[in-house]
Amino acid sequence: MGEFELLARVRERLPPPHGRVRVGSGDDAAVTVPGGATATSVDALVEGVHFSRDGTGLGQAGSKALAAALSDLAAMGAEPGEAYVVLTVPPGLDEDACLEAVDGMVAMAESTGTTLAGGDVTRGPVLSFAVTVVGHASTPERFVRRRGARPGDALVLTGEIGAAAAGLLLPGLDVPALAAPTAAALRRRQLEPVPRLAAGRALAGAGATAMIDVSDGLGADAGHLAAASEVGLRIDAEALPLAEGVAELAAALDRDPLRLAVSGGEDYELLAALPPRGLDLVGLGEAAGVGMTRIGEVVAGAGVEIRLPGGRKLEPAGFDHLG
Amino acid sequence: MGEFELLARVRERLPPPHGRVRVGSGDDAAVTVPGGATATSVDALVEGVHFSRDGTGLGQAGSKALAAALSDLAAMGAEPGEAYVVLTVPPGLDEDACLEAVDGMVAMAESTGTTLAGGDVTRGPVLSFAVTVVGHASTPERFVRRRGARPGDALVLTGEIGAAAAGLLLPGLDVPALAAPTAAALRRRQLEPVPRLAAGRALAGAGATAMIDVSDGLGADAGHLAAASEVGLRIDAEALPLAEGVAELAAALDRDPLRLAVSGGEDYELLAALPPRGLDLVGLGEAAGVGMTRIGEVVAGAGVEIRLPGGRKLEPAGFDHLG
Repeated sequence: MGEFELLARVRERLPPPHGRVRVGSGDDAAVTVPGGATATSVDALVEGVHFSRDGTGLGQAGSKALAAALSDLAAMGAEPGEAYVVLTVPPGLDEDACLEAVDGMVAMAESTGTTLAGGDVTRGPVLSFAVTVVGHASTPERFVRRRGARPGDALVLTGEIGAAAAGLLLPGLDVPALAAPTAAALRRRQLEPVPRLAAGRALAGAGATAMIDVSDGLGADAGHLAAASEVGLRIDAEALPLAEGVAELAAALDRDPLRLAVSGGEDYELLAALPPRGLDLVGLGEAAGVGMTRIGEVVAGAGVEIRLPGGRKLEPAGFDHLG
Repeated sequence: MGEFELLARVRERLPPPHGRVRVGSGDDAAVTVPGGATATSVDALVEGVHFSRDGTGLGQAGSKALAAALSDLAAMGAEPGEAYVVLTVPPGLDEDACLEAVDGMVAMAESTGTTLAGGDVTRGPVLSFAVTVVGHASTPERFVRRRGARPGDALVLTGEIGAAAAGLLLPGLDVPALAAPTAAALRRRQLEPVPRLAAGRALAGAGATAMIDVSDGLGADAGHLAAASEVGLRIDAEALPLAEGVAELAAALDRDPLRLAVSGGEDYELLAALPPRGLDLVGLGEAAGVGMTRIGEVVAGAGVEIRLPGGRKLEPAGFDHLG
């Protein structure tokens, strides 16, 4: 299998480029006309580090690689635009398997309105994806950064947390309290995350002062937002929206479900700070197609405090994956 | 070594972002204000495929990874803008070694006016770089594509070819005919390529109708330009600018120097088609700081013909590196 032949077969599978893309894959570079300002982020998914081919389908790996990168654009409130991918192909992975991974990316691209505008294929020891995504806005000020949260702002979390961590722990466990469909849903949240692009734009439109995706765990990413904004965050542990089945799984492992949920990564939900006045989370959630929960507030000071009933505090487990 | 700590140390080494970049590394995404239209390309450099740590310094590897990506922007006639890098770190490579690779990239970025605007660090089995570069122009039409060459156009090549291939073959060889400084220059062309950004812009400004970088070898890349433009290319083998020392090395290996030069990749020179009327290659070359040679012409038809004296034809060796 040669580089040129595989790239040609990949190109055949790509949908036609969208409006901003004037030249798609196949020239020395892709040509686009951006929408005033761009937000660009990169992410990598490496076999043996972020996934195993035993547990993850190739299409799922491709889809997740793109979803993880797009989640950063969601956290900026960006309109998704283009994606560029370096696909590293290990010995023994045949062309059809490569195309299965590409098809997973294509499906995620189509469902999010992203154009796969360019890429490269290289040999390497393990399957990996390095993805660059570009999102758009009319002006740079439209993007929501990690800095900008102000004391008094409400803290809002999209969706539910803990599912991806629970889905990672599930394989091989026997948890009778967990119904099969619930267990399957937890696995899907781990293997097939969906970037919260509509929610990100809705929150940006509602005046979010700061935003981040909680890909490294709510505890860690709340800390990043607090540090960048030079504020403190006070989170009400009882308000946290735990995904269905997380409590049962945590019980089976004799672990605290809340601690599991705030420490585990890969939920790809968004944490935003917004002025509380007139905040309509029900309306925002309906517009974005995902629940939104007020989980706390921004305060003067520094750091993240996750409060339990009775004045106790929840300490997230350390989370620092090189990757 | 954790991801966050290493990224923090990387960020300390990055020069401040340039004009177009409003938010550099450290948020969910970098924010830029592009110049009307963008050209975006990706490239990868993988240990064991494209380089070995035995033969290549870490700084050289970092510099070459960025240079190879920027060469694609040169071939579009783009103004270099931003670069985004996924650095994969193998077990046993310590933080200082990672930073040496980063320093190589920083030096290449500085010398070309590129901003390292974002990146990611991940673990993986071998050292690798996946680089996305973004270049700018006022309108999408300003970029020069592979298609567009017209019969009657002159074919122009920047610089000299064969040096990178010769530099790859050199280690371990004893070539008495090759002076030490010449041999060292050949090695540098292999290990420390320089993207022809100024030349690309000069050729675009002079009305280039089509352009490509000859990273896969002049023979192969001329074929790509011919196919994209739906024309034939006629190249005069005797006009080809061979780098100093290529003839001596080829003689020592009993190989044809011209065939070596047109088949070997990684020269990162530019091949452009331009209307011949009023073409001032001396002036263009002086403006761009690199020699420019007229090596042939565009003709009706298809394919690439490299003509030798006496009507014979030179067939490039096959070149298809998956990488």
